[in-house]
Amino acid sequence: MPKLYWEDFAEGSVAEYGPRLVTREEIVAFAAEFDPQPMHLDEDAARSTMLGGLAASGWHTCVLFNRLLVDGLINNAHAMGAPGVEEVKWLKPVRPGDRLVVRAEVLNKRASRSRPGMGFVGFRFEVLNQTGEPVMTLAFSLMVARRSPLPAERGEGEHDRVQS
Amino acid sequence: MPKLYWEDFAEGSVAEYGPRLVTREEIVAFAAEFDPQPMHLDEDAARSTMLGGLAASGWHTCVLFNRLLVDGLINNAHAMGAPGVEEVKWLKPVRPGDRLVVRAEVLNKRASRSRPGMGFVGFRFEVLNQTGEPVMTLAFSLMVARRSPLPAERGEGEHDRVQS
Repeated sequence: MPKLYWEDFAEGSVAEYGPRLVTREEIVAFAAEFDPQPMHLDEDAARSTMLGGLAASGWHTCVLFNRLLVDGLINNAHAMGAPGVEEVKWLKPVRPGDRLVVRAEVLNKRASRSRPGMGFVGFRFEVLNQTGEPVMTLAFSLMVARRSPLPAERGEGEHDRVQS
Repeated sequence: MPKLYWEDFAEGSVAEYGPRLVTREEIVAFAAEFDPQPMHLDEDAARSTMLGGLAASGWHTCVLFNRLLVDGLINNAHAMGAPGVEEVKWLKPVRPGDRLVVRAEVLNKRASRSRPGMGFVGFRFEVLNQTGEPVMTLAFSLMVARRSPLPAERGEGEHDRVQS
């Protein structure tokens, strides 16, 4: 399948990527390396925390989300990275045995001021578990190459709606 | 050293954690698992991207930041997690051999509506490389246990400034 350009993303479109099983072993291994707090490392210690039992690091959920997005979308598009993340909300614990799915909605599209060969695609993402509950939401824009670069004078004019 | 309570954080205070060396091996290993894009995996492929050479995944910078924060602050406080992240900006590439330091500033403190035994500490973080350039900024609030739980009536009244 040919890779997607900026022009191929439609505002309001929705896609899903996954599922991805989360194991106890990877929850503990990730936490030991990047987030060594009791509620991510040890079932007994986790029971007395706000999470009420062993749960994945919120950052682990972020990177599992990212892997699903890269496999499902980013590596199938002429993607050029992202300038950051607008917001992450950790809503529910991710438990061993959970199966995660990413739901991606295109919120908006914007041309780039400084790079007429690309544009921004603004997404809202939900990560859902196997019961359909959102465990995390986040939002950010991907930079994606245009099939047809914007003429320079239009790139500096009416399409010039974002800092980039 | 006794662990810090919510009362021990002072608005405007600044602390630094680190440094942490970032190796080529861990950049590639993290990317292979969580962000398999060419600019994080392969020097030759990376050269033709916007990053101009091999660079760490932005998510890798996030989790290295988190490890420094857990070792330097979170595990030395009565911390109870975070509800999310307000904003992440990836400003500069993180290269093999970079040494990262976290600079943490307390922006504000707020009581919790629903849990009189804890409060929120709002932080702004910068991750700096060995030349002092910020490579990433982010902001979020940590939930921290109070030394002296708030009386219930005040918890529902004047201190009640956040959803929690």
